[in-house]
Amino acid sequence: MEKRKKIAVVLLSGGIDSATTAAYAKKQGFEIYAITFSYGQRHSTEICFAEKLCVFFKIFNHIIIKIPARIFSSSALSTESESPVPKKRDISSVGNKEIPSTYVPGRNILFLSYALSFAESIGSRDIFIGANAVDYSGYPDCRPEFLKSFEEMANIGTKAGVTSDGFKIHAPLLDLKKSDIIKLGLSLGIDYSLTQSCYDPESGGVSCGECDSCQIRKKGFIEAGVTDPTVYRK
Amino acid sequence: MEKRKKIAVVLLSGGIDSATTAAYAKKQGFEIYAITFSYGQRHSTEICFAEKLCVFFKIFNHIIIKIPARIFSSSALSTESESPVPKKRDISSVGNKEIPSTYVPGRNILFLSYALSFAESIGSRDIFIGANAVDYSGYPDCRPEFLKSFEEMANIGTKAGVTSDGFKIHAPLLDLKKSDIIKLGLSLGIDYSLTQSCYDPESGGVSCGECDSCQIRKKGFIEAGVTDPTVYRK
Repeated sequence: MEKRKKIAVVLLSGGIDSATTAAYAKKQGFEIYAITFSYGQRHSTEICFAEKLCVFFKIFNHIIIKIPARIFSSSALSTESESPVPKKRDISSVGNKEIPSTYVPGRNILFLSYALSFAESIGSRDIFIGANAVDYSGYPDCRPEFLKSFEEMANIGTKAGVTSDGFKIHAPLLDLKKSDIIKLGLSLGIDYSLTQSCYDPESGGVSCGECDSCQIRKKGFIEAGVTDPTVYRK
Repeated sequence: MEKRKKIAVVLLSGGIDSATTAAYAKKQGFEIYAITFSYGQRHSTEICFAEKLCVFFKIFNHIIIKIPARIFSSSALSTESESPVPKKRDISSVGNKEIPSTYVPGRNILFLSYALSFAESIGSRDIFIGANAVDYSGYPDCRPEFLKSFEEMANIGTKAGVTSDGFKIHAPLLDLKKSDIIKLGLSLGIDYSLTQSCYDPESGGVSCGECDSCQIRKKGFIEAGVTDPTVYRK
């Protein structure tokens, strides 16, 4: 009898990191259940990319969760915010403990909590997140100490955490540079034209080329020595 | 100039505990922002009671969040589950570390995560939850060690947690018996006819009288020596 694959719940945003994380989890032999969030982000076009990735990866279980925009209203990434997405920032400053205006309040806590409840409901104990502490270490919810703390909390506050071996939060990209993430993803066969990184795409979906996320993506492809399939406005 | 009240985000389900917690937070001088969840619970009539409570307490900021039922599908409380709500259980066994089938996977983790993101967005640092470890100590996400762990995680994984004094998770009912909660609530002026506890009400909204929650409610009113305004089927 064929052994049933273990299930992993993967947070899938439609960007480079979550796509690479999904490919990594798949390579590890997990059956993937993906969750994507629609939370009033300016870059809601990323959801379409998450859908494309699910087709590409043959992920048949994909949930798109709606979170009311006002929950994250203080972030410059939210359509509820009057703050613009910062452009042409010096991205060499990103990671110097400064928390940028694109920080979304408790986003990874809420996303991981959804993944946790869903995982417990379907009998999975493995949750994958594309958190990365190198390029974005300004975000407190992308740091290793946060992920460790979330995992501990999850294993105190759930039935599976208390009565079994509990949950594992996997963040395989945590210590990788963007260029190394891209190289890893390419070695896993990812087509990165199915991803989008821009925080503030134009109405037609074209990436701005100037937000932190576009700049980090551009730099990552250059450093990896491969062509970026993205069309940028600038 | 009148000093602006501090804001508290309160989880409000429509039952005795969350109603009493809201009254307590109000008494402490907080302006209340309430959050109620519609998550495919069999007892979704509780949401109407949460709305009644907001009118009663003059809570003008009330968000009702929709969570897809499949997120919590393994709980007997979910309409997605084929397991019935247990009836006529010996409630003296509740609290003996047994986790009942009415456990909802990671529910308080997800609910608190919503409260946390919303609190950070609106500049609040105080979150109130009606968790109680006496009557329901079978639920891992109602125990003091869980609440402490959540608070620690929140203060590692958020901007306000890292850059300010951080968040406080208030659980004022944690160590109270149901009868003491009812006495406290009555002293705060609560009209408990505006609350519902039943896990499995009939289609007309009448409480079953036999689930754990109805039994604990009945017992609480009897021990408090006051009349329970609830109409029970049995």
